[in-house]
Amino acid sequence: MNFFAAPVAKLIEEFEKLPGIGSKTAQRLAYHMLNIPKESALSFADSIYDAREKVHTCAICQDLTEHETCRICQNPKRDQKIICVVESPKDVIAMERTREYNGVYHVLHGALSPMDGIGPGEIRIKELVSRLGTEEITEVILATNSTVEGEATAMYLARLLKPFQIKITRIAHGIPMGGDLEYTDEITLAKALEGRREL
Amino acid sequence: MNFFAAPVAKLIEEFEKLPGIGSKTAQRLAYHMLNIPKESALSFADSIYDAREKVHTCAICQDLTEHETCRICQNPKRDQKIICVVESPKDVIAMERTREYNGVYHVLHGALSPMDGIGPGEIRIKELVSRLGTEEITEVILATNSTVEGEATAMYLARLLKPFQIKITRIAHGIPMGGDLEYTDEITLAKALEGRREL
Repeated sequence: MNFFAAPVAKLIEEFEKLPGIGSKTAQRLAYHMLNIPKESALSFADSIYDAREKVHTCAICQDLTEHETCRICQNPKRDQKIICVVESPKDVIAMERTREYNGVYHVLHGALSPMDGIGPGEIRIKELVSRLGTEEITEVILATNSTVEGEATAMYLARLLKPFQIKITRIAHGIPMGGDLEYTDEITLAKALEGRREL
Repeated sequence: MNFFAAPVAKLIEEFEKLPGIGSKTAQRLAYHMLNIPKESALSFADSIYDAREKVHTCAICQDLTEHETCRICQNPKRDQKIICVVESPKDVIAMERTREYNGVYHVLHGALSPMDGIGPGEIRIKELVSRLGTEEITEVILATNSTVEGEATAMYLARLLKPFQIKITRIAHGIPMGGDLEYTDEITLAKALEGRREL
């Protein structure tokens, strides 16, 4: 039996669909939506509409943008010859936060995962290949996650892009800054050792 | 500097306004909204619109409803002579979950709190008084929270309603002091209802 008025029940149900939101929180958020000024609630709803109507992928790098091409691809101060390949738009944000990278990006929107039916055709690989054919690129940095899928994707791309004879690099894996050797897992430590550099 | 496309930044900002949602979660939820099928995202937005456009307070008990009067006030099987006074619509849900109460409700939409400038005029007390004048009521159960504000409201109402010479009861303190009705388990709440005492 449902104790809620129908539109309230529906709203709770919608909140419950969000990742990490349980039924109690969904209920609390739904009532919050009913308690705040009406214009605030509608502004929240409108921001979802806006995001879905206006945001699409950049014609060049496939990152999210409300324009034809994104701000990074449009920026003449960015080095358009270096492409950093990442899995998702969130990774672009993470990279930008470092303020250390001045090249451009390519967002794959996923990683190869045959178990989930995600092959090269399901992620934006052909768009990357087409960029290499038309733009003048000197380096491709593979910055996919260091998960099984991310590693597989990096390996696949490294092999696929070899014929272009461009420098292809993979971001370093090792001990995170501030991390203790003692608490670092074996695989990370092995990677750190393997990737050691001369000082 | 903002790294997000404008509509995405706006969406994150809106999610951040929700209670208990921090900036990382807001970002995750915003990207979730961009990743799910468009119709799912718009259905979420629509449910907010729907809730705000269709839901209003019941003409009798002030609970939330999409109709003129709520399902409980309309239900001939409910004892319309017993009114349970609660602070919020969430408390009605909590009471209904006990399946022990067969009367009707009155939702105050708040509790007296002079510190926050909430006096008797700010909550739905006059609507309750008017019901007592027009409906045939035999008992008023004061089921406000056992917080300072809830207790003060119960005391205020007990004194205010005395001239009507109706049985006025307060739910028993089976509820832990300082606890909210909304988060009380059904059995404790049912016990509290059962052990109500005349004031």
